[in-house]
Amino acid sequence: MHPTELVLSPRLRKTAYEDRVFDLGIQSFTIYNHMTLPVSFSSNPQAYQHLCEHVQIWDVAAERQVEVVGPDALKLVELITPRDIASCDIGQCVYAPLADQDGLIINDPLILRLGEDRFWISIADSDVLLWVKGIAYGCGYDVQVFEPDVSPLAVQGPKADDLMADLLDDSIRDIRFFRFIETKINGIPVVLARSGWSGQGGFEVYLQSSADGIALWDAVWQAGQKYNIKVGAPNLIERLESGLKSYGSDMTLDDHILECGMEPFLNLDKSAEYMARESIEQMQQSGIKRRLCHVMAKGDPLPALRERWQVSAGATAIGLASSCAWSPKYAANLMFAMLDIQSSQPGQSVSVLVDGAEVDAVVCDNRWNV
Amino acid sequence: MHPTELVLSPRLRKTAYEDRVFDLGIQSFTIYNHMTLPVSFSSNPQAYQHLCEHVQIWDVAAERQVEVVGPDALKLVELITPRDIASCDIGQCVYAPLADQDGLIINDPLILRLGEDRFWISIADSDVLLWVKGIAYGCGYDVQVFEPDVSPLAVQGPKADDLMADLLDDSIRDIRFFRFIETKINGIPVVLARSGWSGQGGFEVYLQSSADGIALWDAVWQAGQKYNIKVGAPNLIERLESGLKSYGSDMTLDDHILECGMEPFLNLDKSAEYMARESIEQMQQSGIKRRLCHVMAKGDPLPALRERWQVSAGATAIGLASSCAWSPKYAANLMFAMLDIQSSQPGQSVSVLVDGAEVDAVVCDNRWNV
Repeated sequence: MHPTELVLSPRLRKTAYEDRVFDLGIQSFTIYNHMTLPVSFSSNPQAYQHLCEHVQIWDVAAERQVEVVGPDALKLVELITPRDIASCDIGQCVYAPLADQDGLIINDPLILRLGEDRFWISIADSDVLLWVKGIAYGCGYDVQVFEPDVSPLAVQGPKADDLMADLLDDSIRDIRFFRFIETKINGIPVVLARSGWSGQGGFEVYLQSSADGIALWDAVWQAGQKYNIKVGAPNLIERLESGLKSYGSDMTLDDHILECGMEPFLNLDKSAEYMARESIEQMQQSGIKRRLCHVMAKGDPLPALRERWQVSAGATAIGLASSCAWSPKYAANLMFAMLDIQSSQPGQSVSVLVDGAEVDAVVCDNRWNV
Repeated sequence: MHPTELVLSPRLRKTAYEDRVFDLGIQSFTIYNHMTLPVSFSSNPQAYQHLCEHVQIWDVAAERQVEVVGPDALKLVELITPRDIASCDIGQCVYAPLADQDGLIINDPLILRLGEDRFWISIADSDVLLWVKGIAYGCGYDVQVFEPDVSPLAVQGPKADDLMADLLDDSIRDIRFFRFIETKINGIPVVLARSGWSGQGGFEVYLQSSADGIALWDAVWQAGQKYNIKVGAPNLIERLESGLKSYGSDMTLDDHILECGMEPFLNLDKSAEYMARESIEQMQQSGIKRRLCHVMAKGDPLPALRERWQVSAGATAIGLASSCAWSPKYAANLMFAMLDIQSSQPGQSVSVLVDGAEVDAVVCDNRWNV
């Protein structure tokens, strides 16, 4: 598989920050929610090292928002996730996987509560807008559902607090994890949340007008100069080390929410009605058949995977690996793989079929311990 | 804007034909329905010339199907489009734009009727699966809605009939436009439809098992050798000349179905219930404010457009151009543009702002006549 060019067109929407992304030497993109999402500006290991030590600015405008507002907004948001939303404070965000009536995963967004009856569903790569609009129509709910002109900009890494304190003031240090405030940066209204798609800490800045994208970017960039800021992107190595799954790769509409290790993020006994309840209760009784696992392979770095790799235990195919990166921290290849439950215990020896060759590996727990 | 690499990963789904696409020297991709869609193997004008004279094979597996089957299937499919579906025969496909309760365009698929209560919605680039699943859930309809393992392969160009007659038999010449048969090619079950995303004629072959993708491709490829077959892709020049709009570029969820010139494909007085009816009736009474137009600019070829270009009449901004290609046939740049109704008549002089320069152009009718 040789490198191929991505042809950009209006259908692949331009982000509010894309001009700067080109100015700073973008090397490769992916497409996410019909929009460009930068992948790399330098080698992955270089970007990883910098992210873990300094601070980066990421164009993550492709994390689109689905706004749900109106008298039935809470009822609707409760319906689509087994997570309890009623107890979510205004100014709080929660990781809330969405599941359909069969318990299958529609998306795994953050949900931000902006008001009693106003939410942003900050989505991974699927058209949750159509899902929620369809349900609202069919159920006859009194809500508006739309995609607002909101473009998240991520500021990630251990120096993110210092940068944002310079840009605003020291009070931002008190924002707790998964909490947000509404504020202004150089006069530009933003929602500032302590969140982000890395384990290195930092913020997501929700810009509320594309027209201000370059001004916001430049303000962050300037404030970041004394902290050795670089342009970056969600980093494959870092997300594997931090155990962050990617919707569409590691879990899809073919996967049940209980198979994906989502229990810690769910409130299965919540009082509100939710569409996956019956399916989840049935699955709890019958027991899950597969589990999304962490799998480690020592040895040389494996190539990038185009499609999922078959995983076997002995001569038996037991599942598929969906993400892989070579980790400097563990000096090993880290993978996520959906495996048959019988072969999913930490310590299980497996082999992974990579371009025709068998690679020895072992199942780990979710903190990469065997 | 310099060329950028597309990073492939399992989230950007591999097609049933992708290995051959790489074998044959793919140059550039786009992403469509979370899947690769080839854009070019050679220059656009070369590919255009060949398509108009010979026959091409296209990997259009990214045209995914949404299958709707069950007792309420017809009622559900009727609900989502202002096109009459009840009168669609089994073995027929119809172009059926989907619109929500505000008349806004969700997608512009073909709908294939496979049985009394069984349909494939063959979609453009948005998650119609989630839209239809959501409505079915909310309305409590007795249907199954899912994405089957179906991968269209297009055989397009004036020699497509000869090729397919060799591969099957002469009876395929009798398949009428937008009709299909169920048959087998080298033992591989397919739905064979006279349709396709060009104006040059040909077929779409709906493969029903990804595992047979390479065998199907090779069978078509071999039969095509005597007809000078080449690998190709939906061609920007040809689609502009043929007036084929692209969902996501030329029309989006922000556009009303009546603004997009869809009336010829609708049955607004159909007896079945459809969700856009009230909005369409209101729009008919008030009159549309904008219209999707054909716009022509003589002179040198314009660059590829990354985002929509502003169109003006005199000093007044009147809309945006969303697609553009230089046409050998008309010796001009052809564009689609959504324009204010007052300035949308054929013969209207306009200017298009391209990378800071004003380009003179004129509004045409839908056959590129002024």
